[in-house]
Amino acid sequence: MLSLSGAIKRALQVNSNSPATIMQERVRSWKELVAEVALLAGGLQKLGVEPGDRVAILSQNSDLYYLSLFGISWAGGVIVPINTRLAPAELVYWLSDSGSTVVLVDEAMAAMLPAALEELSEQPTVIYLGGDEAAAGELSLQSLLEDAEAVAASARAGDDLAALFYTGGTTGVSKGVMLSHRNLLLNVLQTLLGVQARMGDVILQAAPLFHVAGGFMCISTAILAGTNVFIPAFSPVATLAAIQQSRVTRLFLAPTMLNMVLNDPAFPDYDLSSLRCIIYGASPMPEALVRQALTMLPDVDFVQSYGQTETSPILATLSPDRHVLDGPLSGKLRAAGQPIPGVELRIVDDNDQPVANGTVGEICARGENVMLGYWQQAELTEVAMKGGWLHTGDGGYLDEDGYLFIVDRMKDMIVSGGENVYPAEVENAIAMHPDVAECAVIGIPHEKWGESVHAIVRLRETVELDANQLMTHCRELIAGYKCPRSIDFRETPLPVSPAGKILKTELRKPYWQDKGRSVS
Amino acid sequence: MLSLSGAIKRALQVNSNSPATIMQERVRSWKELVAEVALLAGGLQKLGVEPGDRVAILSQNSDLYYLSLFGISWAGGVIVPINTRLAPAELVYWLSDSGSTVVLVDEAMAAMLPAALEELSEQPTVIYLGGDEAAAGELSLQSLLEDAEAVAASARAGDDLAALFYTGGTTGVSKGVMLSHRNLLLNVLQTLLGVQARMGDVILQAAPLFHVAGGFMCISTAILAGTNVFIPAFSPVATLAAIQQSRVTRLFLAPTMLNMVLNDPAFPDYDLSSLRCIIYGASPMPEALVRQALTMLPDVDFVQSYGQTETSPILATLSPDRHVLDGPLSGKLRAAGQPIPGVELRIVDDNDQPVANGTVGEICARGENVMLGYWQQAELTEVAMKGGWLHTGDGGYLDEDGYLFIVDRMKDMIVSGGENVYPAEVENAIAMHPDVAECAVIGIPHEKWGESVHAIVRLRETVELDANQLMTHCRELIAGYKCPRSIDFRETPLPVSPAGKILKTELRKPYWQDKGRSVS
Repeated sequence: MLSLSGAIKRALQVNSNSPATIMQERVRSWKELVAEVALLAGGLQKLGVEPGDRVAILSQNSDLYYLSLFGISWAGGVIVPINTRLAPAELVYWLSDSGSTVVLVDEAMAAMLPAALEELSEQPTVIYLGGDEAAAGELSLQSLLEDAEAVAASARAGDDLAALFYTGGTTGVSKGVMLSHRNLLLNVLQTLLGVQARMGDVILQAAPLFHVAGGFMCISTAILAGTNVFIPAFSPVATLAAIQQSRVTRLFLAPTMLNMVLNDPAFPDYDLSSLRCIIYGASPMPEALVRQALTMLPDVDFVQSYGQTETSPILATLSPDRHVLDGPLSGKLRAAGQPIPGVELRIVDDNDQPVANGTVGEICARGENVMLGYWQQAELTEVAMKGGWLHTGDGGYLDEDGYLFIVDRMKDMIVSGGENVYPAEVENAIAMHPDVAECAVIGIPHEKWGESVHAIVRLRETVELDANQLMTHCRELIAGYKCPRSIDFRETPLPVSPAGKILKTELRKPYWQDKGRSVS
Repeated sequence: MLSLSGAIKRALQVNSNSPATIMQERVRSWKELVAEVALLAGGLQKLGVEPGDRVAILSQNSDLYYLSLFGISWAGGVIVPINTRLAPAELVYWLSDSGSTVVLVDEAMAAMLPAALEELSEQPTVIYLGGDEAAAGELSLQSLLEDAEAVAASARAGDDLAALFYTGGTTGVSKGVMLSHRNLLLNVLQTLLGVQARMGDVILQAAPLFHVAGGFMCISTAILAGTNVFIPAFSPVATLAAIQQSRVTRLFLAPTMLNMVLNDPAFPDYDLSSLRCIIYGASPMPEALVRQALTMLPDVDFVQSYGQTETSPILATLSPDRHVLDGPLSGKLRAAGQPIPGVELRIVDDNDQPVANGTVGEICARGENVMLGYWQQAELTEVAMKGGWLHTGDGGYLDEDGYLFIVDRMKDMIVSGGENVYPAEVENAIAMHPDVAECAVIGIPHEKWGESVHAIVRLRETVELDANQLMTHCRELIAGYKCPRSIDFRETPLPVSPAGKILKTELRKPYWQDKGRSVS
């Protein structure tokens, strides 16, 4: 049966002396890592962790995060990765909703915890991952490992619950997405073919590990018996430096992260020749940025991935051979890709009926990578899984060649004067202007049309551009009713979620407060 | 859920107008194929095929075989591929044991059927795949399709039984190996990474489709949305011609087949420049043949695969970068490879206890590609699956790097004077002699030692070599007790099974008739 423990056992068997994790000067081989995983599992069991018990991780990215992921699973526990940017009330909700009996916390996050623990009726055991002294009432990882005995891997596998990934951490009501061992491992196997993976890949874990895309990349290294390189938190220079130092071959970046890396002044100073593949996803990438990336990193294969937490997470990939600007294979650059093997995609209308190719509707999916359901939310699960298909909440269409085009999150769609406007299309038009660094398009209240199209734009430094010039640029590319009616220029970066998605709910808030439209 | 129908539905979605099957002048696109699959399924249901009913195929390789595989599955039936070289009594056994209610038969095999049907108490419906007139009592495929209506794909998937592949067709008692949809599809996903697969690959189906390796390659084309090229039966020239004509990129060959292709006088006459990967397996390949292959096809990636019907079938692969004669990656050429992702391998002793690396024992495996069990053979299933591990019956060891070395089928092992002799090792030594075309080593009865080592050798044409010279050659390579005590030179090719394995049971027969050792 597919299991997280089985994956690292195989990595141990086929690549025991190669580095599994690299965190600055600290390197663990697969042999060392698996030995420590078995010890940590023994320690967790000694603390009373039973099969199926939830164990939370609240930590920046690190090799100890990786150790924790697999240690929890080896012990038979269910991993609950916690978003490091939660508001206190949200942290309380995640810990209590999941019923986590143990929390592993690192130095950077330790200060968040005490206030949250005060609100909990049942106190979890806290394991401190930091290098310094554990606080009162906390157990240090070091002492736990010293007192523990290695145990055999739990038999949990296949359909057994492996992890709860909460969605909507920064806004709205969180739901725990239940992903099984098979969900998680199969999704990596389904995706490997489309992402140019190779045994022994060196993967930089640049995206936060509490996000399912980070989890996916962690499982990828296990399946590929490869090497994980960690930086505590994303920054363009830390990313560039880690690629150079550890000869990284592959990483996942959200488009905003890639934008920052490519436009960092230090970009030319680093040797990126080891890099073979960048997977981007979690939000659409403006075509202008894709063009820039292809020009600046001509030897790198770019793969777009599309999916969501509920699908472990990948549903579709756009392969490198479609990342071309000319020739017979061009024209798919704005697609999210084709369904990966083992995934069925269909588009449905408001009555949940399949629509013809080319028609926009809600994207639905089936496959063994689709979640078990929402944790203790049978009704929400039933709605999401209506008719046996996962309803993604994303709008899109399939073309004749089976390429999926995302028009937008259904909830981001703007209805202006009876016309549907998909922000991504408008954003792509704006981003084609060479002076634009980043932008977001939202609907704002309008007395006559219901909503009007509003753009928030940050320009590149040292350029000047006014709203009229930018509107003229847009009118050359898209229909008049889709063009922004108002533009707000900003000098600071747009707010993004930890996963790198622009937080449109934040942007919408000032306009919609005390108005009817939900902002979540 | 993973299903055979899901695989071709995706191929239809992502590559609808590309050729799915090519049989000489007859080409079907994925769109045409899936439409015909849905029609055939409708026809089968009209004949009374219910979910889980067994439907047999007795046919040479062809595009209609491919259509039948997926049509049966789409209808909800269980595929029973029949070995085309069965003796009449064996054919009766397979049909009655499986309880097949429908048999699809082609022109070449039609003559085998009537005698077998006479022995059956329940008469299956016979569907004739040939282009000419169906015989009395047979229904032609053409008329079935004309009268049928397309149906939606059966919901059978995941753990549901997809196929019964019988083992031991040519000797011994046959067992129906029950493989589920997930077994078959997952095994392809697990293996894709190691076999340099690409979307849209053009695969020549040169090995017989009733063998599980053929089934694996058929599912591979579905998952890769690629193209199948068929030749009715293997011959070196038909293989070479098909590669050239259809620009084949990939094929599976048993070592004996590869030997015939490389040594065919017509080899230099064909353009094989489209070929990117040859997967070989089903039996060990002599090192001398690997060396010849690497020299004659320097641009082709060679992948060795190891497994058996019970594992759908692949457990381990040896990647192209290990197919090298010198340098730091050499030294693994005689290994069967490393376990594929999702497979756990271990070696056990006579007491079913795991042994240390380097120690020979029985190869055991776990994974979601391991069969559901033997059809209606609960006791045999229990023995094979003792302790939750599939016992392969093959002897081998794992080295420190997780490479699996097959020493031999346990039953082929020779015990001579208390020493274990593994025929593969002796065969490798003999095959290193440049004058040897092929060879097999068996144990024959010996009054004093129990068994003695006996070699059957076919020399290349126009060379002369006597037994003493060959024995001297062997003594330079392997221990004296392993060297053949007697050598039988033959001028005709050694007998092989349809899957290309040398039939050692046949070779042993004359020596062991009326003696104690079982020859099956």
